[in-house]
Amino acid sequence: MQASPVRKLVPFAQQAQKNGKTVYHLNIGQPDIKTPSEFMDAIRAFDEETIAYSVSNGDPKLIKAISEYYKRFDMHYAEDEILITNGGSEALIFAAIATCNAGDEILVPEPFYTNYNGFTIAVDVKIKPITTKAEDGFHLPSKEEILACITPKTKAIMISNPGNPTGVVYSRQELEILAEVAIEKDLFIISDEVYREFTYDGLTCTSFGNIDGVEDRVMIVDSVSKRYSACGARIGSICTKNKELITNLIKLCQSRLCVPTLEQVGATALYGVSQDYLDEVNVEYQKHRDITYNALSKIDGVICEKPTGAFYVIAKLPIDNAEKFALWMLTDFADKDETVMVSPAADFYATKGLGVDEIRIAYILEEKSLVRALELLDLGIKAYNKAHK
Amino acid sequence: MQASPVRKLVPFAQQAQKNGKTVYHLNIGQPDIKTPSEFMDAIRAFDEETIAYSVSNGDPKLIKAISEYYKRFDMHYAEDEILITNGGSEALIFAAIATCNAGDEILVPEPFYTNYNGFTIAVDVKIKPITTKAEDGFHLPSKEEILACITPKTKAIMISNPGNPTGVVYSRQELEILAEVAIEKDLFIISDEVYREFTYDGLTCTSFGNIDGVEDRVMIVDSVSKRYSACGARIGSICTKNKELITNLIKLCQSRLCVPTLEQVGATALYGVSQDYLDEVNVEYQKHRDITYNALSKIDGVICEKPTGAFYVIAKLPIDNAEKFALWMLTDFADKDETVMVSPAADFYATKGLGVDEIRIAYILEEKSLVRALELLDLGIKAYNKAHK
Repeated sequence: MQASPVRKLVPFAQQAQKNGKTVYHLNIGQPDIKTPSEFMDAIRAFDEETIAYSVSNGDPKLIKAISEYYKRFDMHYAEDEILITNGGSEALIFAAIATCNAGDEILVPEPFYTNYNGFTIAVDVKIKPITTKAEDGFHLPSKEEILACITPKTKAIMISNPGNPTGVVYSRQELEILAEVAIEKDLFIISDEVYREFTYDGLTCTSFGNIDGVEDRVMIVDSVSKRYSACGARIGSICTKNKELITNLIKLCQSRLCVPTLEQVGATALYGVSQDYLDEVNVEYQKHRDITYNALSKIDGVICEKPTGAFYVIAKLPIDNAEKFALWMLTDFADKDETVMVSPAADFYATKGLGVDEIRIAYILEEKSLVRALELLDLGIKAYNKAHK
Repeated sequence: MQASPVRKLVPFAQQAQKNGKTVYHLNIGQPDIKTPSEFMDAIRAFDEETIAYSVSNGDPKLIKAISEYYKRFDMHYAEDEILITNGGSEALIFAAIATCNAGDEILVPEPFYTNYNGFTIAVDVKIKPITTKAEDGFHLPSKEEILACITPKTKAIMISNPGNPTGVVYSRQELEILAEVAIEKDLFIISDEVYREFTYDGLTCTSFGNIDGVEDRVMIVDSVSKRYSACGARIGSICTKNKELITNLIKLCQSRLCVPTLEQVGATALYGVSQDYLDEVNVEYQKHRDITYNALSKIDGVICEKPTGAFYVIAKLPIDNAEKFALWMLTDFADKDETVMVSPAADFYATKGLGVDEIRIAYILEEKSLVRALELLDLGIKAYNKAHK
């Protein structure tokens, strides 16, 4: 099992900080945005004397709040069709266990969220990539190309929509093609929609919960982490209308007893936060997206498409090796005692050799830091190439 | 994968409650004791504006607090030898994944904590039971009998000490025999010591952290759930001096990003709670143990040994089938609209046919409720046998 790539540079970043450098983090999806005060208010008001186990399936109040939330999207999950998990991470691993046996395969468009590797290797399930390309804006290839990736071992399709690390927002038509494939090949669909509200330029994200004909194949994975800037709450969920899947997922929930009681109290309050908050955050991220895309476009030799969702962008750099570069930026580079940390993108591909000169940027820093971080990236590329001539 | 046995009667208990019955819970280890106020005080004082990801390995403050705590027992784990987990549950599953491949076996004295099944089935590892018996006070059999349970697939020994569900406290000599076996057969030792402080009659629990010669084989699993009556915090930990294990465990930690931030803040405060609190709780539980044992001894036909640790006891009942009985108590029995819920013990055995007429009682209710619950058990046994003549 590989170390989380986004995190394996961390010791070098820590060392750089010990050496007195300021490190701007473009590498991790940890927003600077404030968590709505409703979260801590609800937790501070918790007045039971014993911090007792919660229900394995999840706190009924939180489940009800999630059921209500989905109605905004014309998605109708009953309370017994929703389970609470330890973040989206646990929802994804539970979905993999519930749909696959050891040796089975899950189809995933690459580049993909690297932790998908962690989930699947832990339970001995293989990721079979559907390669997508920057020049196509990381949209899906044709139905024929997708079908060609399927083997008798393929049990499910897993997608992140909007996409981490690509920022792609899949069209309804793309989802319908995946749905056709799922029906034809009898596959489950694990739809990771934690960035659902983060779409720009007037786009909206179609959920697999709104695609007809695959209701009994779809699991919707969600989380409060990004939507409400509450990554440390570790509250996720999984919804499905497939009763057999729910039964199996409940057993997995029972095996770890329950999700923390207080975090569920806080998350329940988050689901009640007004749409205005989400709209404001959206405006903010779109601005960040623009700053990032414009800055990247101005760096000599950098190639990237304008992303339309989530808060990530993949950029091809004019360097030999992005992992070497990311490390060098922490160990050797500084401008006024400052540097920047990025994620090498090769780790987001299952196909060896892809993404070697690409990085993923999370544009989550507040504006001034973001501008400076992108300037440091520009300076770093120039200095790196000079040092490695 | 089986449903958690302690929890599968839950819907029937809920139905009984809906029908107006009061159900006394002797079935679950959820103490009524108050969580020390330090927990909520620390959380209420948390004043960061963003609930951010914590470090995958765990909050350094909590790790430091745990390192300090272990010094009370002359156990010396450095901060890089301790990892924080989502409860003891996750620590156990991580320990199983880190030591075993699919198809491997873990040796466990039975009866054992049923969730051990859940952990191991989820990762396709088999539990090989070392049968222990009520008449031996659930102490371990001879070294020869233990050796006979080992196959080439055996990778680890997992024990709960003090024992759930038996209340046994293993002697230093027993641990030393297991250590010899581990060395001879090259096994890891996963020592679940979450009930460490709960020992009675002047006994103390020897930790595997105090046994010489197996430092690089031992993983100590711990949790704040029982010690500080904070089951819903879901904070556990795993300690080991084996660097390779730590490296592999860290990868598992990274795959789920982190444990909730606030719960770790609360748990850090719990590890600072004075020994007086633990001493008081101990006195309380010893009293509960006595009430329970004395009441059970007075019920006609009930056989049980006096447990010396944790807060559980296994009792053999004068009935045909404990699962049938436990269900019947929820569906058919009432005395003044009250009934009692117990755990059938067959689920705690891996060997088919064992424990069919046994139940596990968790003696965690406050005194008055405990006395009434045991009275209801007595009345229930009589009524059940009358109804099933």
